[in-house]
Amino acid sequence: MRQVAVIGIGQTKVDEHWDKSLRDLAGEAALVALADSGLERVDAVYVGNMMSGSANHQQHLGAYIADWIGMRGTEAYRTEAACSSGAASFRTAVMAISSGAVESALAVGVEKMTDSPMNEITAALATAADAEWEAGQGLSFVSLNALLMRRYMHEHGWQKEHFAPFSINAHSNAMHNPFARFHEKLNIDRYLKASMVNDPINLMDASPTGDGAAAAIVIPLERASRFNGHTPVLVAGSSAATDTIAVHHRKDPLFLKAAFASGKKAYKQAGVNPDDIDVFELHDAFSIMAALSLEANGFAERGQAPRLALEGQSQPSGRIPIATRGGLKARGHPVGATGLYQIVEVVQQLRGEAAGTQVENARVGMSQNIGGSGSNIITHIFKKPD
Amino acid sequence: MRQVAVIGIGQTKVDEHWDKSLRDLAGEAALVALADSGLERVDAVYVGNMMSGSANHQQHLGAYIADWIGMRGTEAYRTEAACSSGAASFRTAVMAISSGAVESALAVGVEKMTDSPMNEITAALATAADAEWEAGQGLSFVSLNALLMRRYMHEHGWQKEHFAPFSINAHSNAMHNPFARFHEKLNIDRYLKASMVNDPINLMDASPTGDGAAAAIVIPLERASRFNGHTPVLVAGSSAATDTIAVHHRKDPLFLKAAFASGKKAYKQAGVNPDDIDVFELHDAFSIMAALSLEANGFAERGQAPRLALEGQSQPSGRIPIATRGGLKARGHPVGATGLYQIVEVVQQLRGEAAGTQVENARVGMSQNIGGSGSNIITHIFKKPD
Repeated sequence: MRQVAVIGIGQTKVDEHWDKSLRDLAGEAALVALADSGLERVDAVYVGNMMSGSANHQQHLGAYIADWIGMRGTEAYRTEAACSSGAASFRTAVMAISSGAVESALAVGVEKMTDSPMNEITAALATAADAEWEAGQGLSFVSLNALLMRRYMHEHGWQKEHFAPFSINAHSNAMHNPFARFHEKLNIDRYLKASMVNDPINLMDASPTGDGAAAAIVIPLERASRFNGHTPVLVAGSSAATDTIAVHHRKDPLFLKAAFASGKKAYKQAGVNPDDIDVFELHDAFSIMAALSLEANGFAERGQAPRLALEGQSQPSGRIPIATRGGLKARGHPVGATGLYQIVEVVQQLRGEAAGTQVENARVGMSQNIGGSGSNIITHIFKKPD
Repeated sequence: MRQVAVIGIGQTKVDEHWDKSLRDLAGEAALVALADSGLERVDAVYVGNMMSGSANHQQHLGAYIADWIGMRGTEAYRTEAACSSGAASFRTAVMAISSGAVESALAVGVEKMTDSPMNEITAALATAADAEWEAGQGLSFVSLNALLMRRYMHEHGWQKEHFAPFSINAHSNAMHNPFARFHEKLNIDRYLKASMVNDPINLMDASPTGDGAAAAIVIPLERASRFNGHTPVLVAGSSAATDTIAVHHRKDPLFLKAAFASGKKAYKQAGVNPDDIDVFELHDAFSIMAALSLEANGFAERGQAPRLALEGQSQPSGRIPIATRGGLKARGHPVGATGLYQIVEVVQQLRGEAAGTQVENARVGMSQNIGGSGSNIITHIFKKPD
């Protein structure tokens, strides 16, 4: 099994890009990543995207984007796993390299959500849940997460304001990230006064959608030294796991079983444990998801993640920095692209390029991308080579 | 690079399955393949599907189907490359095994097209073309293929009736395949009298859509002997290539460049040439595509594929048997599932299980799945171990 390294990264700002199409965005992120890598061409293009079929009347994004960025001929297809589509495309790229099938690959995640009316986007997002047993009954993702948050508060005795530090940290970090959707400080007062979306989830607990693309270039580690520029970053762990698609089928809906399973496997592959992780880009689509992710991956005891955040331990200077470039909450959540934004941000941290929110001496980073309400979870661990 | 073997196959009939949902179909094919393999569980589930987001209001098929077939927890995601989504999922499974990431994988292709009105299905199929430069101008896949067929007839001097043997062979072979959509003999008279769809393509040049699922189980070759039952079939070549997404961007639209490129690579991997191929399951979505595929892969000179068919060389007893279980034309074309039907059928031939249309002494088989109008082409070569 060949070791794999990231040698290039690229991203667009997460925004309402009224002036740019899906292929403009994907092309921009891909070409930035290529230029960053020093490569002119790759053997394969794997595209992470959730909803272009409905939102943009365009599927077949592999050939579509390969063609657009001047890579006609190259192998190319799309991976989809709802909001974890981005990490799925990266995992495909890693397996392709490590199998020897290709010598270089581009993984690009892209989503263009503002071309459709919001009700259509909500319907498209709902295709990640069970169409018959969840979405068809009127459950949206925010309502599923509201049920989880309410139950968590009930079981562990937390109040709504105790979730504020997750969102405040995300917004504070995003101030330093030029690619983040929001550059607005958040404080406890604004958090508490935000409009309610689905009790107890208010606007400041929920991540915004948006348009955006992020990309990474991978090659075999042994070839990485040939390229100039940045230190290559090793993909030390890559793992995926699923859980029931419907939340009501879980005995313990407050435990992200698939996060635990894929995290455990990735720790083992990388030869690390939670104490070794210097930065963790987690999937804070809702503040409750940040809490559940920290717990399932061994950073906090069950029911104790809000304490960790209240103590400031999830800030860049804390014990386990999360959402260091804004996270889903403030960098934004263009769904099929998010997994690659997370990976790009971990690579930035390990390269020492996270100006303003750089984690000191970051050597091991983890990204975790969640599809559905914890139904599909893909974990990657990255290391700065010694 | 570990060698990979197919140890289980499964399929449903291609039909209008009004009584079965997408998950029923995928589950049936997957469980048949599992039972056929002798395995009880696999490490990963890769789903090939094109249009469930619009046709079934359901995406996230990895977790969805893994959950349904009792594989909660396992790695699972979907691949999409328009009509070549099925082969893309199989290629992902092959790379996953050969990289060492997993020890067993299920690739399942599924499409449930009859739950939506035909105009919606036509629109969904059109998402495989360029939304702005093709589909948005009113071009459908049949019209794109009609342009190709007309040009081919003009350049090479063939008449419409010279394409009949492709469809007659497909329908004749499907008579013996219980999983084929059509069990109706076709003759030249019926071919010529069929309703025109888009001149020169008539109903008997075009493959039918439908509902269906097909599946294959792969494991490392070195472990294959541990399982009882069938002789494992070696995946000797696996390769993918793209071309421009829009047909008008090709200098020579009658040459399937991506078929040539992925075929050439697969031949090299398998150490064979076209003369060694005993059976070729090609992508005869339209009869013109059968002709172009035979030529691009070295089975006929440019412009000469109709002659090969007219001479009966594409029948099961001929030099290069194609569509041996009915092909897309008569087995049917449930788009995201088709690539796996082709693979299942090649494996049947190499196992000697193709009753009625068995190719004598079949030892090397090839499948080739096309997405868009030749924009993405994925080739696999299989060998019966000595």
